[in-house]
This record gives sequence, C-alpha cells and structure tokens, in this order.
Amino acid sequence: MVFVKTHDISELTSELIGKQVVLGGWIEDLRKLGKMSFITLRDVSGISQVIVKGELNDNLGEINRQSVVSVKGIVQETKARDFAFEIKAEEIEVLGKAIHPLPVDPIGRVESNIDTRLNHRALDMRNQKTASIFKLRHYVLQSLRKTLVGKKFIEITTPKIIGSASEGGANLFSLEYFGKKAYLAQSPQLYKEQMTIGLERVFEISNFYRAENSHTGRHLSEFTSIDIEAAFMDYNDVMDVLESLVMDVYKFTSENCKKEQEIIGHTIEVPKSPFERITYNQCIEELKSAGEKVEFGDDLLDSHLRIIGNNHPGFFFLTDWPMKLKPFYIREKDEDPELSRSFDLQYGYLELSSGGTRLHNPERLKNRLREQDLDPAQFTDHLKAFDWGMPPHSGWGMGLDRLMTTLIGIDNVREVVLYPRDPDRLSP
Amino acid sequence: MVFVKTHDISELTSELIGKQVVLGGWIEDLRKLGKMSFITLRDVSGISQVIVKGELNDNLGEINRQSVVSVKGIVQETKARDFAFEIKAEEIEVLGKAIHPLPVDPIGRVESNIDTRLNHRALDMRNQKTASIFKLRHYVLQSLRKTLVGKKFIEITTPKIIGSASEGGANLFSLEYFGKKAYLAQSPQLYKEQMTIGLERVFEISNFYRAENSHTGRHLSEFTSIDIEAAFMDYNDVMDVLESLVMDVYKFTSENCKKEQEIIGHTIEVPKSPFERITYNQCIEELKSAGEKVEFGDDLLDSHLRIIGNNHPGFFFLTDWPMKLKPFYIREKDEDPELSRSFDLQYGYLELSSGGTRLHNPERLKNRLREQDLDPAQFTDHLKAFDWGMPPHSGWGMGLDRLMTTLIGIDNVREVVLYPRDPDRLSP
Repeated sequence: MVFVKTHDISELTSELIGKQVVLGGWIEDLRKLGKMSFITLRDVSGISQVIVKGELNDNLGEINRQSVVSVKGIVQETKARDFAFEIKAEEIEVLGKAIHPLPVDPIGRVESNIDTRLNHRALDMRNQKTASIFKLRHYVLQSLRKTLVGKKFIEITTPKIIGSASEGGANLFSLEYFGKKAYLAQSPQLYKEQMTIGLERVFEISNFYRAENSHTGRHLSEFTSIDIEAAFMDYNDVMDVLESLVMDVYKFTSENCKKEQEIIGHTIEVPKSPFERITYNQCIEELKSAGEKVEFGDDLLDSHLRIIGNNHPGFFFLTDWPMKLKPFYIREKDEDPELSRSFDLQYGYLELSSGGTRLHNPERLKNRLREQDLDPAQFTDHLKAFDWGMPPHSGWGMGLDRLMTTLIGIDNVREVVLYPRDPDRLSP
Repeated sequence: MVFVKTHDISELTSELIGKQVVLGGWIEDLRKLGKMSFITLRDVSGISQVIVKGELNDNLGEINRQSVVSVKGIVQETKARDFAFEIKAEEIEVLGKAIHPLPVDPIGRVESNIDTRLNHRALDMRNQKTASIFKLRHYVLQSLRKTLVGKKFIEITTPKIIGSASEGGANLFSLEYFGKKAYLAQSPQLYKEQMTIGLERVFEISNFYRAENSHTGRHLSEFTSIDIEAAFMDYNDVMDVLESLVMDVYKFTSENCKKEQEIIGHTIEVPKSPFERITYNQCIEELKSAGEKVEFGDDLLDSHLRIIGNNHPGFFFLTDWPMKLKPFYIREKDEDPELSRSFDLQYGYLELSSGGTRLHNPERLKNRLREQDLDPAQFTDHLKAFDWGMPPHSGWGMGLDRLMTTLIGIDNVREVVLYPRDPDRLSP
C-alpha cells in the first residue's frame, strides 16, 4: 500500500461516516479479543478506535504498542464512550516498529523523573502532558508576536556571535571565530538599542546564552528571550507594553488551549490588571517590617523576594531600583539620581523580566561605563551610534521559558524547553 | 517639556487639523528662510513638514540634520506637494544630537559601499531603502509563520549548542562548555526529525552557524534558516508545502508592502505556480546538450547551475539527486536505489532550499552512516529515537536570507541581514 494520510484524527466528522479514510499514528493500546482486535490509535491531533476483524485480524501478528501504523478503513459510529467515531480497518501497515520495553512509558502510567524524560525527549513527546506543554508554547509564541506586531514593533534578528564582551563580560561562552576570539550573545541589548535610531520600535524572540554555573529550576545556559526596545518611550510605557503582552498571552491561551489545559491539569487564570507597581524603597520597608536586616542599596536576595512574593502573589512590577545595582545603560531618575528608571516584572518571587529607560546621551553613557569599571574603548562600535542622533528609548527582556512556567503552574524551566542546556546537560 | 509622543507621522489625518500633536523623529532636512524655518521631520512611519516661526524660530539655534527632536504643534493643511499635512511648531526640543559630518549619508544622496554601511548599520537604518528591506523582512516572517501555522505545523525551538558533531562534522564552530567540547548547530536536522515522533509536523525559524571560509554574496557564518519536518509526508508533499509557502510570501508582501517596494525600487512579481520540477538526470542531459562534460553522479558546479538557471529562470525544483551526493539521512527511491527522494529549490542558479524524504528505518540509517564513513556510535542519542516507533517523514531547510534576496532582486545576502557574520566580519 502506498501510504497517503487523508485525515488527522481530529478531522473525522459525522459527514465521513461510511467513507474510507487513511489515518497515520501510533498504537497507544491494542487488545486482542479472539476474532477481533481493538486498536487505540493516536496522532498529534487526537485519538480514535480502530476495529480489526476477520482475515485482517488473523494476520495482524504481534505489533508492539507505540509502533507507528497506517490504517485504511471506514469511519463508523461507535458505542465506545471515549471516542466520537471508530474505524473499521481494511488495511493496516506497520511503518515504524517500537521496541519493547520502552525506556519511558509515554502513556504516563509509570512516572519517570525529569532527567529520564529529557534523555528520551522524543518519546516523552508522546506523553500527552508533555505534548500539550509544547503546543501551548506554540500558541504563546503566536500571541506574543500578534501583540507586538499590533503595537507596531518590527521584528529583528540580532547576531548571536559577537566580537566583544558586551554588558560587562561575565558568564560568556567564548569560541574561536576564524582565528579571532568571539562570544555567544547574552542578550540583544546593545543591538536592539542601536536599532531604535531608524526602526524606533523593535522586538526579537530568540535564543541567548549564559555560561553561568547554576543548578536551579529557573536557570539554563541556553534560553529563549523576548526582547523589545522602543524609541520615545519611558520605562512606564514599556511596562504598559509588557503588561498587555502578558495579559494577552494569558487570555489567548486560556481561550484557545482548553484541551491542553485539561490534559496538563492546570487552568490558566487570567491575572488581574493593572499589575501592582511597587518601588524598591517600599520593598525595603516591607522587608524591615518582616524583620529582615536590609538597607537601601542592598540587592534583594532570593529569600527577600520570597517574602515580597508572599505579600504580593502573582504578577507585580518592582520599580525604581538603586542605580548602583543596575547595568551601565540604565538611566537615573531626574528627581533622585540615586534611583533608576528601571523595573523587574515579578511573578511572586520569580523574576520574569528586567527593563528600564536607557541612557541615550553618549557622554553620560561613557561616564557610567567608567563608574562601573568598564572600558569605553571596548564599546566603541556601540557608543559611536549614540553620536548619530539617538532617540530616548526604553525596553526590556523577558524569559519565555519562565513565563511558560507561570502559565502552566510548574517550577522547572526544563519542562518547557525541548532540549535544555545546563552545566550538566549538553545532550541529547 | 516632558515628552510624550502622541502620534506616529503616518497617523496624522484630516480629523487632526487644528489639533495639537506631539511628534518625535529625526530632522531629515532643515531650511532657514529668514523669519521662518522648514523642518522635514521623519519617523519610522513617514515624513512631515514642520513650520517654525516667530520667537521659536529666533531661538532655534543650530541643529544638525539627523538629530532627534520632539515637536509639539498644530496640524494644518499644507501647500507643499510632498506632504499631506504640516505642523505649526509650538515647542521643539533636541533629544539626541547628531554629529556633523556623519560617517554615511542616511539620505542616500552620497552612496556608500556595503562595508561602510554595515560598519554604521544603525545609521544606515535611516536610509529608507535599508529600512524598507527590514520592514519587508518583518512581513516575510509573518507570512511564513501564518502559512505554516495554517498547515498545522507546530513551532519548536531546538538547541543551538550541541554536544556532538551532527551531520558529519565539517564546518562547525566549537566552544568550551563547562569543561566539555560543544558545537554550534548547523541546522536543526536531527532534532526536528526526532520531534515528528510525537508532534508530527514541526517548524523552526532560527539562526544557525557554519564555519565555512566562504567569501561570496550568498554565504554567511550565521544565517537564518526556515526548517520544517513532517511525519507521513513524502518529498513531493513537502515540496508542495514549500511551494505554497514561497507563493504566500510573494503574494503577501506584494499586496502589503507597496510602499516598501516603491522605496526599494523593485516590484515583487508573484511567480507562476506550479514550479517546474526537473530531475537531476534531466539536468545532466541539458548540460550535455550545452557541451558540458558531466556524468551521472557528478555534483553540479556553480557553472552548471548557471546554465540550468538560464534555461529555467525563476523558481524550480531540482529533484531525484544521486544518493551518493546526499547526506546519510536521505532515503533512496524504491524503483532506483541509486537515486534519492530529494530536491533543491532553485531560484535560477541560486539554491534556496534542500530537502527530501528521510530514512526512518534504524538499520538502514546505521548502514548509510557506515557507507559515508560516519560512526553510528557518534549518533547514539539520535539513533535510539528510531527504535521508539519512528514515522516516515520528510522535510527541508530554506535560507531566509537567500529568499529575501530573490524577493528584492539583489545579489548580496549582507543587504538583508542586520549585522552579518562572515570570515572577515565579526563586528559591529
């Protein structure tokens, strides 16, 4: 039989009853009952029952579960409760055999730990919970781009191989590039700022790299970042953009991914808007009230953020951080130069995004570099763009993987990344 | 003045006549005529004329062209032919000074070569031709994803840092990864094949890396690739997907990017469909007729492809290549095992895409690896997935940058990549 799939399982409708279809998928279950066999056939779209009788049943032989088959047959009504229709098989061909036993159970009856599942990620994708997470991610990406395109941001692609260690230079992967030393970009920060000169509002959703020896559920060496930068916007404006982006993702997936929510076993609750905006100084007061020994200028530790996160569950902005805690490109507040026009978007204790108004004056930018013991000569290519008529601009970067964990209600970013990379994991 | 931009220039309508607006943009031209000045103000969306009179004009001082300003003023009708409206200025503030002279002329009156423009890419983005290319690219990305999502492909993100040299190992960038040797991915080939096990139809649009010491107008070390892989599809099916994808891109940009085409000075002509499908054997005959000394099994040289490209201008598929010219994962034709189920999409002599039906039988795949002097042990992580019920599958990868050059009618991919990377170019 030359195999041409005519329908996804989800495309079977009552109009097809009595008609011949060809399906392709994998055998989730197979029960032989004497003169009949029942196959539970799954494809990416859904699940169906296949009835095998007569000669075809006699010649069926041994087929391991999870093997891939094509099924030609007639669509008919079914009495089985779990299926809308069933297929009376006319031809069955095994296209891809599955070994038995398999290294993980794709039905999820036997639970495997995350490492085992990641080591067999392709098979893990037959687990409907895992598949649903990545279908959800597919919708999240669509929602993100729809919102940003709607707000007239232009999609750009910045280089990931860079010639100089931007943003200070810590935690960079380095490589040899035709006899020169190069690095993998940690973020599109400098490039996206430069692009505001002519394109005004830009965004990028791409992979970036951090050589940080972290072993937590929220750090990876390769992560997907959503970045925007916008001319003529203040940090309050880009917080507004970020807030509507997050709201849209929640609304879009809540409405369009009912099946995925059901399978994952988590209902996406659209958060309340507007998100609370709490200043760093307020945080310090809250922490002091909670008995913590903190002073203005201290960075907030994970333990601090857990206290603040408990006080403010869900999404909130943490704004106006001390300048000394912020990277060189962040702009101070006019009314209090010790404070910056900056923010983090938090989900409880989890930092999702960091952003702010940028310095756009080249002299002040050079001074800030020197204040942070960075050498302006290392930033020549970047700094020269600030002499060409640089608009005031603001932006942020948000970790897509972390956003996904809030949406699904899980802790480990490895659940939402196909093939995660961390200090211990470089394969598959 | 606290600056809040109220409108993009393209948002000015006759309903706003007599009303106050605040614009932000850069000064493309400034003419002082005694008691009046005329400013040509441009932003990402368009161009407007600003009239400065009275005290404001007296205090205007020197402002270099290309400086970024905010303009508060009243919208009024204009007699100037080039503008729909003009703004009678009430306040003008210089937000970002431009030096004079600038290293490249953003108006494009003085032409700069591509290297000079790339060295000052941010400023080059003020050149409306350059900006239009990247606006067009933004629309192309939207069209690509719309078509693939419509055909029920699921967007995935594969790792770019990989632990073993896939696809043979030539031309890979290597890096140190927490004490281990790692590589930058050349393509998502092995990962996207694995994903068909559970997700069936997947796509990715992302950057990949090739350490090839090429100095041509169509090779870069970092390039954007569009990749698909689909279970239960033959190479003819994925050629159909590719053809409609290309057709959709041409139709979408032809209709939605009128202004960009005008500025670039190139009209996007929707190609004729279906694309011709020419076999490798036909090519060899054509080349022989043209007096070339070629035999079955020879790879087609650039000079050959130029002859074939002249015979078949525009898009065509070049199919059924000899197996020995194809990578290990390509499947042979049942009726002639020396030929493969493979294709290239050509635009004249330019190769845009390469694809085919894949081997999905693990034993045959291992044999092919050995035939190509590759060690199956190097591919353990990949091969084991073929024991879990691998569906027959096909796919292709297409260079986005090359596709863009066909759309715009230019030769050099550097024109369509923001910050290109080649053996000589690692910055900015």
